[in-house]
Amino acid sequence: MARGIKAVGLEDSPGGSGREDAPGRVRVVPRAVRVGLLGLGTVGSGVLEVLERNRADIERKAGRGIDVARILVRDPSRARAVAVPAGLLTTDPRDILTDPEIAIVVEVMGGTGVALQSILGALRAGKHVVTANKDVMAEHGPEVWAAAAEGGADLFFEASVGGGIPIVRAVQSSLAANSVRRVAGILNGTTNYILTRMSRDGLSQEEALAEAQALGYAEADPSADIDGVDAARKLCILSSLAYSTMCRAGDVYRQGIAAISAQDIAHAARMGWTIKLLAISDMQSGRISMRVHPTFVPLGHPLAAVNDTFNAIYVQGDPVGEAMFYGRGAGALPTASAILGDLLEAVRGLDRGGARTSCPCLHQWPVDPVDALQTRFYVRLLVADRVGVLAKIASVFEHAEVSIMSVLQSPVSQRSHPDQAELIVVTHAAREDRMRDAIEGLRHLEVVAGVGALVRLAPEDL
Amino acid sequence: MARGIKAVGLEDSPGGSGREDAPGRVRVVPRAVRVGLLGLGTVGSGVLEVLERNRADIERKAGRGIDVARILVRDPSRARAVAVPAGLLTTDPRDILTDPEIAIVVEVMGGTGVALQSILGALRAGKHVVTANKDVMAEHGPEVWAAAAEGGADLFFEASVGGGIPIVRAVQSSLAANSVRRVAGILNGTTNYILTRMSRDGLSQEEALAEAQALGYAEADPSADIDGVDAARKLCILSSLAYSTMCRAGDVYRQGIAAISAQDIAHAARMGWTIKLLAISDMQSGRISMRVHPTFVPLGHPLAAVNDTFNAIYVQGDPVGEAMFYGRGAGALPTASAILGDLLEAVRGLDRGGARTSCPCLHQWPVDPVDALQTRFYVRLLVADRVGVLAKIASVFEHAEVSIMSVLQSPVSQRSHPDQAELIVVTHAAREDRMRDAIEGLRHLEVVAGVGALVRLAPEDL
Repeated sequence: MARGIKAVGLEDSPGGSGREDAPGRVRVVPRAVRVGLLGLGTVGSGVLEVLERNRADIERKAGRGIDVARILVRDPSRARAVAVPAGLLTTDPRDILTDPEIAIVVEVMGGTGVALQSILGALRAGKHVVTANKDVMAEHGPEVWAAAAEGGADLFFEASVGGGIPIVRAVQSSLAANSVRRVAGILNGTTNYILTRMSRDGLSQEEALAEAQALGYAEADPSADIDGVDAARKLCILSSLAYSTMCRAGDVYRQGIAAISAQDIAHAARMGWTIKLLAISDMQSGRISMRVHPTFVPLGHPLAAVNDTFNAIYVQGDPVGEAMFYGRGAGALPTASAILGDLLEAVRGLDRGGARTSCPCLHQWPVDPVDALQTRFYVRLLVADRVGVLAKIASVFEHAEVSIMSVLQSPVSQRSHPDQAELIVVTHAAREDRMRDAIEGLRHLEVVAGVGALVRLAPEDL
Repeated sequence: MARGIKAVGLEDSPGGSGREDAPGRVRVVPRAVRVGLLGLGTVGSGVLEVLERNRADIERKAGRGIDVARILVRDPSRARAVAVPAGLLTTDPRDILTDPEIAIVVEVMGGTGVALQSILGALRAGKHVVTANKDVMAEHGPEVWAAAAEGGADLFFEASVGGGIPIVRAVQSSLAANSVRRVAGILNGTTNYILTRMSRDGLSQEEALAEAQALGYAEADPSADIDGVDAARKLCILSSLAYSTMCRAGDVYRQGIAAISAQDIAHAARMGWTIKLLAISDMQSGRISMRVHPTFVPLGHPLAAVNDTFNAIYVQGDPVGEAMFYGRGAGALPTASAILGDLLEAVRGLDRGGARTSCPCLHQWPVDPVDALQTRFYVRLLVADRVGVLAKIASVFEHAEVSIMSVLQSPVSQRSHPDQAELIVVTHAAREDRMRDAIEGLRHLEVVAGVGALVRLAPEDL
């Protein structure tokens, strides 16, 4: 058989097929578990590659052989990174979902079309599911968990957040006795790569994005990353586990990095900050608030040192205090680590009755809009370079009840507009809705030619 | 009933006691699980306190009530941080080990006397065990795992390493598909606190230790921390899980921090390093090497920012690349987080047949002595302040085949010995045994009045 695929069980128990030796007497060695794989792109190929490479130990830890018996692909004729016998490939999900011999389904297609329907079908049929699909988990959590309950099946999704970082099981299980008050971190590798290249190496956002695309870190349409959609989904999944409540990604306040320029990064550096796209969810008095936005982090903070495609997640809770997790947030191999860890758990659970995973739904905490949150803001303004401008701007802030901490006229001259100046305003902690009013007021001010990036400062207790 | 203890099950299922309603018909709601607690010191009290505080969620996640039914103590009359009905206390472990109603035993006494015997007895009796006992796990692993197999019982020990950091389950389960090549980190909070106070605040080691003792971070006899014994045990536990092999703490090469002085720290800072007691285990070509020693870490490295009683652990493996875990390495509350997370796992597993945990013993990797390891060294020498000394010292290094990278005469004068000078020698990467020869040679050199701390530089690929 070709590399990447092994059809029968444990090497050290070749006869371990579970068939009856004599009437009524079943052999003790369990037969290999048959796994259906949905998707054979980068991640799917990575899973097969690592399964083959570490197979001996994985199967011994699983206690039985692991047989990838069927693989759903869109185009069976496509060349693959890993050699797979053509007979294993199918374009029809039913070949996997209705095969009674397949006990576990691994979904690595992505998206919420065929992937979602296949996950639901598999769970309802009592097949345990391992998925890397953050879209499905964040947008269709209730449906998926209901299907799992219906089929009495287990659902594993470590790979949906933080690549290879074992954060899902940590929150779900190891930290389960905690009352969590905050989950915060860098959850999107693509934007972290872009911001790192801009901050460390002086690239423009366009250059950094083009590079990320060339390296395969960013997709052709990068909007889900750039706009914070991906980070919001992951935050939603983690918040759901941390607070045991169903979460909708739409409840996450979201601001992407598109408006961030080299100037903002230069100004931040002068003030001792670096910029990160942070995802933060807080639980206070039974109310949740969730947001994803570009954030200035003090250079001494551990999150400031998380660069390139790395992710890092802080969990603050009682009694653990704080715990932090760090690692590669994306990529075929780290993701394969998470998927195969889940697959091992799923296999180990096969011979035990009933599902071991259950929905994060002890509570139905209300989600607050961010309006009442108190945050310090940075905003860059392009203004007319004449007397009296500052007074007008100050009065807009004052009117909105936002207290200014500092105003700095940028030393950089506006070559294209010599009659304009750049002002950097940093506020004291102010309510989000008040700051929104202030920005709105500034936009209507005749002396303001442009409102640049709005960046929040990291919470002081982060 | 007093605070800290609740005798019956779930609040929302008061009748959930598992008794038969009518002949032959058992109620569905499982009755509360009865837990025996061994030890009611700082950690035991913390466990009860947090169980009470977060009880509603913990029991709902467990799916049943948790009833701490019996508590082993040395002195029942002692005042406790948490109120406990006197009737629950016992001084006889058999009251717990032979009680057929007790399904899970939580051991937080420490030591390898009564604790070890009780753990073995409980496991053999088929009771699942949750323990925080690193001494037992590191020194008696094979015995303990054999008892677990004999009794068909589960064994959980998240709290034995890294306090509240969920590192044990991460290595055991989430990262189980990895071929791990290195585990490295700061595993002892007491020494990290001492080194932090010395480095950051200029305290002497004696002052920092006294402070750590006053704060309860260090014991009256601090030798297990200072000498690296504690870190070696934890490294042994993690290595065992990472490589699936039994490990003896005696196989860990160990050098403590006792010889580290304020001078070493000042010299290190000038060279851009900070000092940490690192525990490092490497797997290469089927051979393990393990060591704990004071280490200079470059200031920009994430481990350099791990201060006070915090711990941090790096895991490097294929396919995960690298993952890092950070949090409070000790203290009653973080430890309670780990213990209660384990307890929840144990309870969730109760209704499933068979043990879910199994020994890390797929392999029997040989452990290499550190002799052949290539390391860069720092050593501080007190020498006669006269011409020709450097040549003599250099020839000792040359003879031992250790190549010197730099020699620095300390600007600090030796007030007590004005005829002596301090030399700081930093070597290129050299074999451990060769460096040992060099040190031995220096000790015999008439011009060398004293050999100070020997500190290793962090591996370049850390």
